[in-house]
Amino acid sequence: MKKAIVQVFTGHGKGKTTAAIGQAIRALGWKKKVLLIQFLKKGLYGEIKTLKHFNNVKIIQSGPNYIVEDWIKLKKKGVIGKTYDKVKDLILSGEYHLVILDEINFALDKGLIEMEEVIKLINNRPKDVNLILTGRNAPKKIIEMADLVTEMKEIKHDYRKGMKARKGIEY
Amino acid sequence: MKKAIVQVFTGHGKGKTTAAIGQAIRALGWKKKVLLIQFLKKGLYGEIKTLKHFNNVKIIQSGPNYIVEDWIKLKKKGVIGKTYDKVKDLILSGEYHLVILDEINFALDKGLIEMEEVIKLINNRPKDVNLILTGRNAPKKIIEMADLVTEMKEIKHDYRKGMKARKGIEY
Repeated sequence: MKKAIVQVFTGHGKGKTTAAIGQAIRALGWKKKVLLIQFLKKGLYGEIKTLKHFNNVKIIQSGPNYIVEDWIKLKKKGVIGKTYDKVKDLILSGEYHLVILDEINFALDKGLIEMEEVIKLINNRPKDVNLILTGRNAPKKIIEMADLVTEMKEIKHDYRKGMKARKGIEY
Repeated sequence: MKKAIVQVFTGHGKGKTTAAIGQAIRALGWKKKVLLIQFLKKGLYGEIKTLKHFNNVKIIQSGPNYIVEDWIKLKKKGVIGKTYDKVKDLILSGEYHLVILDEINFALDKGLIEMEEVIKLINNRPKDVNLILTGRNAPKKIIEMADLVTEMKEIKHDYRKGMKARKGIEY
């Protein structure tokens, strides 16, 4: 039986990626190695700037940023799928105590990554590798396979209209 | 009008504290100053070990750990209230871009901190001070005052019975 767990952060509310980043910070405190893969994100966000200071973190981003993209075109390009193939071996190596697959739920939902591939990965990963899968619209099969699933539910979102994203808060 | 916001992470699911820690990491990436106050927590958790490396973070813990305590006895002792009085001035100083009041919702719910005090603090804080309030059972008044509220909803929690909390995952 695997000691490590599969956690899912999904839903439309805030806090999915930041909760995963917080888990990384927790793991780093115990000198554990962390692999952070961001699908559909690319950029020097505040959290990336900070995490880059740690030797025990490896970061891989596979843009483009999900807000601006045409899904069909993106799927044809195959960028996300290629990133996934690359990181699969890193996960299976067992070198990382914690692997964060940021926005993978959304990438699965949009068909950018094959579900069968992820199911195999979850089952075949070394027994000490913990996984966190974030992103809205987590597929049913992922929820079934996970040990722990949290839905971030938006209760209130009073942003002032037209206000720009704020450095140190939204990114 | 305040540019800074009040965020609440509440609910019974996982990810409230870690989402706040993730926000701290984001802010630190932009060289912003962070104040982390943990009510009802005391200990060298993984995240605390990591955050102690940063000069821009000030951490104040006010135990005891909330799981083991008799509320009425704790209220009589007044420890949490005293911590709150101490940190209030730090918040009002405006020195910190982000202030995390970890488990304050729960402390308010249990009557360990006066609601009127927190309402005043939210209203009177300098305009650039962002607040994050975490903890289950966020009082209605807090939700009303917040700009952004996320409920962490537990969808699934398949912990093996009797399994101990794991280093780098739960703490």
